[in-house]
Amino acid sequence: MSRGIFISLEGGEGVGKSTQAHLLAEKLESMGHQTVLTREPGGTPGAEAIRSLLLDPTGEGWGREAEVLLFAAARADHIERLIRPALQAGKWVICDRFIDSTRAYQGGGGGMNDRDILDLHRIGCAGLLPDATLLIEVSPEESAQRLEKRDKGQSDRIGGRAAEYHSRVHAAFNVLASAEPKRFHRIDGMGEPQDIHQQIMVALSSVMRSA
Amino acid sequence: MSRGIFISLEGGEGVGKSTQAHLLAEKLESMGHQTVLTREPGGTPGAEAIRSLLLDPTGEGWGREAEVLLFAAARADHIERLIRPALQAGKWVICDRFIDSTRAYQGGGGGMNDRDILDLHRIGCAGLLPDATLLIEVSPEESAQRLEKRDKGQSDRIGGRAAEYHSRVHAAFNVLASAEPKRFHRIDGMGEPQDIHQQIMVALSSVMRSA
Repeated sequence: MSRGIFISLEGGEGVGKSTQAHLLAEKLESMGHQTVLTREPGGTPGAEAIRSLLLDPTGEGWGREAEVLLFAAARADHIERLIRPALQAGKWVICDRFIDSTRAYQGGGGGMNDRDILDLHRIGCAGLLPDATLLIEVSPEESAQRLEKRDKGQSDRIGGRAAEYHSRVHAAFNVLASAEPKRFHRIDGMGEPQDIHQQIMVALSSVMRSA
Repeated sequence: MSRGIFISLEGGEGVGKSTQAHLLAEKLESMGHQTVLTREPGGTPGAEAIRSLLLDPTGEGWGREAEVLLFAAARADHIERLIRPALQAGKWVICDRFIDSTRAYQGGGGGMNDRDILDLHRIGCAGLLPDATLLIEVSPEESAQRLEKRDKGQSDRIGGRAAEYHSRVHAAFNVLASAEPKRFHRIDGMGEPQDIHQQIMVALSSVMRSA
């Protein structure tokens, strides 16, 4: 049996990643591919427990270093217990956020050194990268408007950070995608969900041929 | 104000670390030093929450990589919120277990690469090492007997691992102490608590002169 295909969806808050992850998983299933739809941080009982700690910290909140280590620990569990076994069983894995979110948020947004983040990924996850990463892009202004509409002033701890922070995250995703044009596929997130889904299927056509 | 002194106590299960940490903290206080007595994993609200996850894992238990990342995350919080501020305020910090326990247990016992463990410590904690590390040593046989007596068959997840594992941990502590004879002070843990305490005070005399 051939190894499955690993696809991550990335981008800022409110760009439509979860909607597109669901549409993609449905489409792949309808094409006869066994598909696992998952998300980060989380995806396994252990990683979801770490997610709860991350989003609702005890005491003073997490410092930058503790936070990035917790993300890495959750990812290690997620890969060991869910992603790697699914890929080995020949399944497609669709993951809503993965290592590039840590690089964009804790790195670009929070100032952690990218080399250190990649070292954590090497130590915790043997450096596993997706076969394809779909970066859904909308302007930071549009993203802010969608978020406000979605959350109506209620936002979780990481989503709720300042506009200037989100602008650094946006810039960091851009740098990551430019540095790895083969893995990253830029998707225009400004249209209707079905149009964006069509873009994604076109972007994935080369990956699908190799599967 | 001069920086405080950071002392860790290390060794296998049941060697008397906690007893000696308490005796040392009392002695230092009686000598007029402001002293913080703490432990790992834990020591801060965030790190204690991670400790709970470590000792009572959700689902299938933690894999080696997730476990070592959780220890590193707890340590990062402990250092940022408690140890570094205390040292900066000129206090003595006595810590029951620190980085060398991760190196001996997850490294020597669990097979994690020591270089990777030190990389995590560099990334999470700027590589902070104790000014002095007291390695309390008893034979593995004696340690096993004490543990059985203490726990009466009930042992936490890490303490309860197989004898062969504890023997590798013992060997790893020995290697660490031999590699850093200036930082490590070997303490014979076979006598009475007060005798062991006296050995510790002699071992620390050079550190105390420099304080």
